[in-house]
Amino acid sequence: MSRAKLIKELQRIKEEFQVINMKCIPEDNKHFLETKKYQCILKNGNIVAREKLLKGGNDGSAVIILPLTVDKKTVIIVEPRVFTKDGIGIELPAGYIEKGESPEESALRELREETGYVPKRLIPLISFYQDQGISSAYNHAFLALDCERKFEQDLDHDEYIKYLECSFNDLKWLVSNGFINDANGIITIEQAKKVLKR
Amino acid sequence: MSRAKLIKELQRIKEEFQVINMKCIPEDNKHFLETKKYQCILKNGNIVAREKLLKGGNDGSAVIILPLTVDKKTVIIVEPRVFTKDGIGIELPAGYIEKGESPEESALRELREETGYVPKRLIPLISFYQDQGISSAYNHAFLALDCERKFEQDLDHDEYIKYLECSFNDLKWLVSNGFINDANGIITIEQAKKVLKR
Repeated sequence: MSRAKLIKELQRIKEEFQVINMKCIPEDNKHFLETKKYQCILKNGNIVAREKLLKGGNDGSAVIILPLTVDKKTVIIVEPRVFTKDGIGIELPAGYIEKGESPEESALRELREETGYVPKRLIPLISFYQDQGISSAYNHAFLALDCERKFEQDLDHDEYIKYLECSFNDLKWLVSNGFINDANGIITIEQAKKVLKR
Repeated sequence: MSRAKLIKELQRIKEEFQVINMKCIPEDNKHFLETKKYQCILKNGNIVAREKLLKGGNDGSAVIILPLTVDKKTVIIVEPRVFTKDGIGIELPAGYIEKGESPEESALRELREETGYVPKRLIPLISFYQDQGISSAYNHAFLALDCERKFEQDLDHDEYIKYLECSFNDLKWLVSNGFINDANGIITIEQAKKVLKR
C-alpha cells in the first residue's frame, strides 16, 4: 500500500469510527476501572496517601507487539479511542496480560486475536511503567518476526479493530507526523528501530 | 557526580523512601482518581461502552521536562512511587497541567516547584497520549535549556521529591539500564537525544 493510500485508508476508518453520540451513563456494578486509596508509611517517617488504578481487577500491565511479516511489512491496527481528539487510535497490536499468562504468551495471543498473525520469533524490546504515580501497570514491548496471517480476527464483544499492513518506513513516518501518538506505540517503535538498525 | 556516586546516591534515596507499611484505607469523599462510564454510538452503528479516568477532576494531561543546566548537566528527580517494585521513581521533573495553564507555563512551574531551576529557553519535544484507551491525558515533553537554580523547592503537602544533577551520558545510561523506567521519561529522553544529536 502506498503512503497516500495508507493515509486515505486511515482517514476512511477514522470517519467510520467517528463518535456521533456520547453520553455518561449511570453507574452500575460492572466496572472495568477501579480506584483504591492507600496510606503508606515510608522508612524515613513520611506518610503518603496515594490512589491506585486497577483495570478489570488487575494492575493493567499490557503487551505491545510490533509485527514484521515474512514480506518485511509491519501490521498496525486502528480502533475507536473515544476519549482522544481524533476519536481513533492508530496503534500497534496490544492488550492486557491475563492472569497466569507470561508477557510472551500474552503477546502471541493478542497479536493473533487482533490481527490473526502468528510470528516465528518474539524479541523482547523494553519494559516500562505506563503511569507509575497511580498504577503498577508494567508494560512489555515485543518485536514479532516472520509473521504470517494464519487465523481470523477473534475480538471481544464491544471490541472493533481494523488492521493494515504498511512498510516500516511508513510506520516511522506515522510516528513523526503524529498519526501514531500513544506512549506504547512511540516507545515500541523507537526501540524496534534500534534493534533493526533502521 | 561520578556514575558510581550517582548510583550510590540513588540507592540511598531508594532506601529512605522504602515503604515499610501500606494499608488500603476506607473510602472517604476526597478522591484524586475518578472514573466515569460512557456509552458511545459510532457513525458505523457500533455501540461501545468505555470508562474514562479523571485525575483531580481533569484529564490528567501532564508535562515532562528534561533540564539542561548552564554547565550541561541534566537534573533528575526521585520520588516515592509506592505502586512500583522498587518503591521509587527515578524520573524527569513532571506534573499535571493546571486549569488555564498552557503546557509551557506548566513546564516552567513544575520545574521550578520540583527543583528550583529556571531555564532560559523551552523547546517542545513531543506530545502523546499516556493511556488512550481510558483517558484523554495528552502529555507534552520539553527540553529546558540553560537552567540555573534560582529558587528553593516548593512542594505540595504529601509530595516528597529529591533532585540530583547528572551528566547527559549518565541519563542515557539510567534509561538503558532500567533505572529510569517510566513511559514519560523514556519518550522524553529519546526525543531529546535526537534534538541534541547525542
